[in-house]
Amino acid sequence: MFSKLKGRICVNATRYVKQRYLHAGPQFTKDSYEVQRGPYRSLNEGHLNYFRDLLGETNLIQDLSDLEKYNVDFYKHLRGKSNLVLRPRTTTEVSKILSFCNANLLAVCTQGGHTGVCGGATPIFDEIILSTELMNKIVHLDEISGVLTCGAGCVLQNLNDYLSEFDLMMPIDLGAKGSCHIGGNVATNAGGIRLIRYGNLHGNVLGLEVVKANGEVLDCLNTLKKDNTGFHLKNTFIGSEGCLGFITKVAIQCAPKPKSIQLAFLGAQNFDKILMAFRKAKHDLGEIVSAIEVMDHKTMEMVEQHTPMSSPIGHYPFYLIIETSGSDEVHDQEKLGRYFEGCMAKHFILNGVTVSSPSQREKLWHIREKIAESFYKDGYVLMYDVTLPLEHYYDIVAEMENYLGNRSHRVFGFGHLGDGNLHLQISLKEFSQEMINYIEPYLYKRVKELKGSISAEHGIGFLKKQYLPMVQSNVNVALMRDMKKLLDPNCILNPYKVI
Amino acid sequence: MFSKLKGRICVNATRYVKQRYLHAGPQFTKDSYEVQRGPYRSLNEGHLNYFRDLLGETNLIQDLSDLEKYNVDFYKHLRGKSNLVLRPRTTTEVSKILSFCNANLLAVCTQGGHTGVCGGATPIFDEIILSTELMNKIVHLDEISGVLTCGAGCVLQNLNDYLSEFDLMMPIDLGAKGSCHIGGNVATNAGGIRLIRYGNLHGNVLGLEVVKANGEVLDCLNTLKKDNTGFHLKNTFIGSEGCLGFITKVAIQCAPKPKSIQLAFLGAQNFDKILMAFRKAKHDLGEIVSAIEVMDHKTMEMVEQHTPMSSPIGHYPFYLIIETSGSDEVHDQEKLGRYFEGCMAKHFILNGVTVSSPSQREKLWHIREKIAESFYKDGYVLMYDVTLPLEHYYDIVAEMENYLGNRSHRVFGFGHLGDGNLHLQISLKEFSQEMINYIEPYLYKRVKELKGSISAEHGIGFLKKQYLPMVQSNVNVALMRDMKKLLDPNCILNPYKVI
Repeated sequence: MFSKLKGRICVNATRYVKQRYLHAGPQFTKDSYEVQRGPYRSLNEGHLNYFRDLLGETNLIQDLSDLEKYNVDFYKHLRGKSNLVLRPRTTTEVSKILSFCNANLLAVCTQGGHTGVCGGATPIFDEIILSTELMNKIVHLDEISGVLTCGAGCVLQNLNDYLSEFDLMMPIDLGAKGSCHIGGNVATNAGGIRLIRYGNLHGNVLGLEVVKANGEVLDCLNTLKKDNTGFHLKNTFIGSEGCLGFITKVAIQCAPKPKSIQLAFLGAQNFDKILMAFRKAKHDLGEIVSAIEVMDHKTMEMVEQHTPMSSPIGHYPFYLIIETSGSDEVHDQEKLGRYFEGCMAKHFILNGVTVSSPSQREKLWHIREKIAESFYKDGYVLMYDVTLPLEHYYDIVAEMENYLGNRSHRVFGFGHLGDGNLHLQISLKEFSQEMINYIEPYLYKRVKELKGSISAEHGIGFLKKQYLPMVQSNVNVALMRDMKKLLDPNCILNPYKVI
Repeated sequence: MFSKLKGRICVNATRYVKQRYLHAGPQFTKDSYEVQRGPYRSLNEGHLNYFRDLLGETNLIQDLSDLEKYNVDFYKHLRGKSNLVLRPRTTTEVSKILSFCNANLLAVCTQGGHTGVCGGATPIFDEIILSTELMNKIVHLDEISGVLTCGAGCVLQNLNDYLSEFDLMMPIDLGAKGSCHIGGNVATNAGGIRLIRYGNLHGNVLGLEVVKANGEVLDCLNTLKKDNTGFHLKNTFIGSEGCLGFITKVAIQCAPKPKSIQLAFLGAQNFDKILMAFRKAKHDLGEIVSAIEVMDHKTMEMVEQHTPMSSPIGHYPFYLIIETSGSDEVHDQEKLGRYFEGCMAKHFILNGVTVSSPSQREKLWHIREKIAESFYKDGYVLMYDVTLPLEHYYDIVAEMENYLGNRSHRVFGFGHLGDGNLHLQISLKEFSQEMINYIEPYLYKRVKELKGSISAEHGIGFLKKQYLPMVQSNVNVALMRDMKKLLDPNCILNPYKVI
């Protein structure tokens, strides 16, 4: 089941490519990639009758046009051939479905909001799609501890809206929040912009209910901050991309909603100064920092060239965006103002502005958010989502620029500096598979040598599966396979993904 | 290997018991408990020669008096019969030791600072003790990201002292910090008083190096905040109590050292008011809260009766201690002062003091810290370390008081309210196994019914092993066993523990 790109149609989800089929939608993945169907049975009328009896006719989707959004991924890179979406409402239904599929050797594609970018939730062949979308009930909110228990199919934004009434918010925030499901967030260990402040899902998820491939229900749905009774099973499923079990419920520690949000937009001479300003921010603003983003001058030039936006502080080699969230506006403004003056006095930064009103903040965030839109107007852009230790964070940009010389149009970098998460962008004049083959092995090898990660928050899914053995040792990959075998011996859960 | 108490000598580590052998030290565990030695080989001269050649004579401990501290647990409840401690310095040495033990069916007891309270690190029979104590080197500190990489044998306090020079601190703090090893902290998913602020080890540990029972080395030692490349193997070993692998190195996200610490000592009319004050603290002080502790009036009475300490604010049914840590003393004092006034105005609290100087803070913390000492002067005290959902946090104290009637001398409660972690104390006039048998099944059943945890942070180890099937479902326990079998098929790692 090793996936390898066929021919010249490159559909790596880490790149925003101009595809010839952008409007018509992608070809079948099985035709674009060298991937073979596993030894699964095909769906027959008997299977369908079982599912109809269990769920009721309305919770099966079989109509071809209705199936489209479940078969084609968000970035329209992949197309599966599934003929059936199952929409269970309860854990018992999920348990019966998986038990049946396991006994009948029917492959299952696990799917939440279907917003992933590595194809982890998109069927490859005719897997039955098991969707969380009707498992969208809030089970309980402990207002005092701030622990929310809910169905895996709850949309992240809906949870935030619900919590807002209780002066709480989710500890995770993503661009896809309007569509992504919390179950999918947990299954992919989604990161997002609040991670720097509120930590990762391994820390924030307190409990899970998971159905194993054989239909057994694992009840790890506790809501306690401290619980050391046996091995920590729930963590096995966080970031397992639907390959080890199907998450049905989530208990998560929520955060108090901040009463004050401030933003600083700063310019610096070089990346060393950015790191000094970063460290000072962590030191001076420690408890109120909620985002630290960086972009280089080439990124800003691209935004200015392709959008009406412009730098609010003139032009500098590097820009730093710092957001704070706290419980006291006066205190937060004072801290940020003092930080700003300190950075100026020490020449960590050359210029900057601080703002606090929502409209001013939005305007500044807009520059950051417009980067992706500018890609499309800047030729053919390859985007790589990597994490690097901060001491090497920006080196890779210069190194790739050197390596590519005049073969590239522009090599630039921006990203979540606070998490070490860099978006390395390489802009080419036109698509070239040879260039991709020239770039990727070198880049991933260097990221590995620098002890970085080739997938910061997007996971492995289908599209990065071929790179897993490159970045994980044989011992690690073997253990991953062993765990897959232990939890899903018939390999019915999300085949063709991760390993 | 099911452990069950023999006769009347109760040595449950969750209770601070007055034991008849407190000075002479405990009997052999194998004689106190119904536990059978597993089918392991006994150490012979050939094995010893192998270890001598590998480690050098000085890194083997065989002298009986030197073995004492490795064979007897911190609370002097358990005594193993190990004849050998191995003190490897490198991962390669650990790998060779485990590979050899696995091939020769020699049981191994994994041991860090040996400060655990459930017997997880104490040998039961003649297991070879594999100690982390010479694996105590700092490997790397990334001063910018605050990520520390170090050997598993580093003492927590030493790490804190080292980090202090860089204005950083460990995200975990424990009473045993002067002796416990970071590897042991991770292996037991230790909690401690900073958890409310900095989160748990699943969130803070970014990487681990682990040696499997067969000697294979798992390199999950990345230092990145965002890394989604395959299943999250490292989390399998956090909280696995040395039963699934031997942790050799740890990479951990450290926190900035606070520049300001404030303390409030408050009195309230009832537990409902305590919960209101708790919620207000989380809301008003959100980003600066670093501890929220509670104690009832019976706890305070006991402290006052048995020590020279007294309440600094007069007597109230409940007391709340709130600590804040932040980057600006003026801001923090203002926030805490405002919170205090708000609580008074809303009658959440009846009285209180706030202090900021280190000496004043220490004096107030001293009351909390003196509780344990007071136990010993208050008859025979059973201590239960449980977590409960906050809505039921204190109910269990009243319920146990009702249940016990005049059979108990005093039933009282205090603990880490911020984490839902209650120390339920039952003071008896004298030791009585019948009373223990009367209390425990009822208490643990109730804790389970209330969706609490019978082990907040102490783990299962040897002493709570018999209760695991009571609090985890059959499906969960079966998966724990499967994981043990997968990672340690010969069951050489820490036998007689957890499952």
